Amino acid sequence: MSVVSPVLDQIDANLDASLERLFALLRIQSISTDPAYAGQCRNAAQWLVDDLTSIGFEASVRDTSGHPMVVAHHDGPEGSPHVLFYGHYDVQPVDPLELWTDDPFAPSLKEVEPGRKVIFGRGASDDKGQLMLFVEACRAWKQVHGSLPCKITLLFEGEEESGSPSLKPFLEANADELKADFALVCDTGMWDRTTPSIDTSLRGLVGEEITIKAANRDLHSGMYGGAAANPIRILTKILGAVHDDTGRVTIPGFYDGVEETPSQIKQSWDALGQTVEGFLGPIGLSELSGEKGRSLLELVWARPTAEFNGINGGYTGKGFKTVIAAEASAKVSFRLVHKQDPDKIRAAFRKFVEERIPGDCSVEFLRHGGSPAIQLAYDSPVITKAKAALSDEWDKPAVLTGSGGSIPIVGDFRTFLGMESLLVGFALADDCIHSPNEKYDLNSFHKGQRSWARILAALTA
Amino acid sequence: MSVVSPVLDQIDANLDASLERLFALLRIQSISTDPAYAGQCRNAAQWLVDDLTSIGFEASVRDTSGHPMVVAHHDGPEGSPHVLFYGHYDVQPVDPLELWTDDPFAPSLKEVEPGRKVIFGRGASDDKGQLMLFVEACRAWKQVHGSLPCKITLLFEGEEESGSPSLKPFLEANADELKADFALVCDTGMWDRTTPSIDTSLRGLVGEEITIKAANRDLHSGMYGGAAANPIRILTKILGAVHDDTGRVTIPGFYDGVEETPSQIKQSWDALGQTVEGFLGPIGLSELSGEKGRSLLELVWARPTAEFNGINGGYTGKGFKTVIAAEASAKVSFRLVHKQDPDKIRAAFRKFVEERIPGDCSVEFLRHGGSPAIQLAYDSPVITKAKAALSDEWDKPAVLTGSGGSIPIVGDFRTFLGMESLLVGFALADDCIHSPNEKYDLNSFHKGQRSWARILAALTA
Repeated sequence: MSVVSPVLDQIDANLDASLERLFALLRIQSISTDPAYAGQCRNAAQWLVDDLTSIGFEASVRDTSGHPMVVAHHDGPEGSPHVLFYGHYDVQPVDPLELWTDDPFAPSLKEVEPGRKVIFGRGASDDKGQLMLFVEACRAWKQVHGSLPCKITLLFEGEEESGSPSLKPFLEANADELKADFALVCDTGMWDRTTPSIDTSLRGLVGEEITIKAANRDLHSGMYGGAAANPIRILTKILGAVHDDTGRVTIPGFYDGVEETPSQIKQSWDALGQTVEGFLGPIGLSELSGEKGRSLLELVWARPTAEFNGINGGYTGKGFKTVIAAEASAKVSFRLVHKQDPDKIRAAFRKFVEERIPGDCSVEFLRHGGSPAIQLAYDSPVITKAKAALSDEWDKPAVLTGSGGSIPIVGDFRTFLGMESLLVGFALADDCIHSPNEKYDLNSFHKGQRSWARILAALTA
Repeated sequence: MSVVSPVLDQIDANLDASLERLFALLRIQSISTDPAYAGQCRNAAQWLVDDLTSIGFEASVRDTSGHPMVVAHHDGPEGSPHVLFYGHYDVQPVDPLELWTDDPFAPSLKEVEPGRKVIFGRGASDDKGQLMLFVEACRAWKQVHGSLPCKITLLFEGEEESGSPSLKPFLEANADELKADFALVCDTGMWDRTTPSIDTSLRGLVGEEITIKAANRDLHSGMYGGAAANPIRILTKILGAVHDDTGRVTIPGFYDGVEETPSQIKQSWDALGQTVEGFLGPIGLSELSGEKGRSLLELVWARPTAEFNGINGGYTGKGFKTVIAAEASAKVSFRLVHKQDPDKIRAAFRKFVEERIPGDCSVEFLRHGGSPAIQLAYDSPVITKAKAALSDEWDKPAVLTGSGGSIPIVGDFRTFLGMESLLVGFALADDCIHSPNEKYDLNSFHKGQRSWARILAALTA
């Protein structure tokens, strides 16, 4: 009998209890971007420490200048590798709250179609559900074997959804403690409900908030309209100029460092059979909005974007107010690929904006994090072993994919700890992460635990 | 002794009491655009009816499908003209409330510089202070002479700040009762603190709210960015295209009906000595934002505009959310001049927007009122008499000016009652109407009452 078989049985036997534990974690409103929830973030960190301690980890809440980190260690057999598992316990805000069918922080199991149950609640998929997979795999392994197959360090942060301001200082200050042979990062998705995947690329991210200020007070648009600067007009003129008619970003230097994807890779993506209709149909859309002449997967995995994530100015309540606002603001983000430099992109955008501000107006910039893109080697031993382990657990063989989202931690692990990451996750495209009615398939939660047990076995065989 | 002299003395003697009455009216939170304040609007109407009844008017609150009207009548000597005085008792919303130095609905008298006192509070200038001038002039006249010098009808509406939806039906239904020889409208300003003015033109207004809808839910900008439509991007692209680089509006047909102002009129405006620095300096600006090659007064009195009064979409709270919003919206208004047709402007704008909406997205329009511009005859007897009366009261002779704002009632009086209007008002440019910290000079309140008494005397001599 293999070393992993009884662990898989134990995971099966633990399923109901593991679900209760996840629900307890989901009930904690750990929204990191809103300072009002700081106490809840700390509660989530303490909950994880208590749970990890009960398994046998040496776990602690570690203060930062923002929300705390959770760090936990467990020894493994001599000569075994040392792996660092990363996850985040913070979640996105829940607005617009009225679009949720139930309280986002009252998790429940729902049967959405015959035989398919999902875990409903904010963070069910991103990332509390995903991080608990590994915790449960460790618990089951320890219960069966009384030990773990390798030295394991866990790092859970509480600021992933708000730019991770404390992460780099923490990694730098604790590099000796945290450096492992490689990292396991569980914040990605499956290709589909039966096909696991390993992400080999991640887009980077630059976040900027701009506020354009004109008059020193709100103005009557009749008295001043035609003479006085309107900051909403300036803002929309600038943002309206960021893309040309082919969908390309017009900011000078924006495409520096962007590489053409090798044709072999593009062919393997084409072989995945993803259609525009299949991708956009479920969200009510039908046309690709990005650069013309690029395939869907190229657009979301290998091309950079400029997106406007929020915009606000003037009177936005009911009715009408004939006002010229004193200021207007927007939150703008750029998804980066390949060798695009976040600092250069930020500087180029700021220059692009500043050049378009009238002489009697001003602009303020607020930085919201930045991280370069990641491109992993397709043929590393870790990826090869993990691919085989995943293929054993699931109905279909694992595939190598890209990811359109950012996981800045992967770049930080490379930069600060000299460590590459294995990106495996079990989220699905319809999980509604960052949206109302977030969920995580019960199947992902169950077979995800089993997958991590199999990967641990493969990596330590 | 002239008939008006004792009335002027009575106004002087009544000043403190008239101020107390205005404060009582200012305390009523009659914000018409927000349905939550409907009861307060009715309270303001009833307060006016009670006050007018005490003077001897036959006054009543008249229900509409929105906020009620106040109508009051008082007979005059046989053969005297019949004048209709118009004002509005509703006020603008008060947000952003945190920018007010005091409660907007707790009026007070403040000395802003030695010898200059102002009445502080929402509606102090627009329009409760201005409408009470005429009420107080009537009160004083009645107290002195036991009668009024002509037949007077008062019409106070409660929806001027929210598009006046009930006004036209009310005028149509009550045309016989309301039709007078001419109207007196007190919703405009003085040229400066010592120079009264009569407005001979008013810009019209078209208000539109547009909401662009893309995906059926908010999306993660990493997962979908580059593939899925972003409604904020569509909205900013459209609004960013409304003006060209010379400040002209690009909507096809927008300038149909706009006339060149006669050079004689432009010369008289130039003679007023208004500088860009003097106009924009107090609000912290220095550059004209409208069509290039036009003078300041031409831009605000005789040229049309497109303004963006509010914009909203995506995540606008603290921090950052990497979301692609499901929808984005904007409130847009157009100031019209001369013979521009509000319906055609609205239709042209909607077509302009619709042509720029991607095939898988949609747009919804919400109408927020519309009125054509007004251009009065410079040499009518009423204007000539009023100009002389104002020149008697103030330090400097009255001037004929234009107004950048809309007073739709003036067009409605022309359309529905076949009646022209005399536009006289005592607001000042620094009154902060529609903004935080609205005020009305005590001098405007005092000499404005005296001015109306003089005008009544001149018109009935």
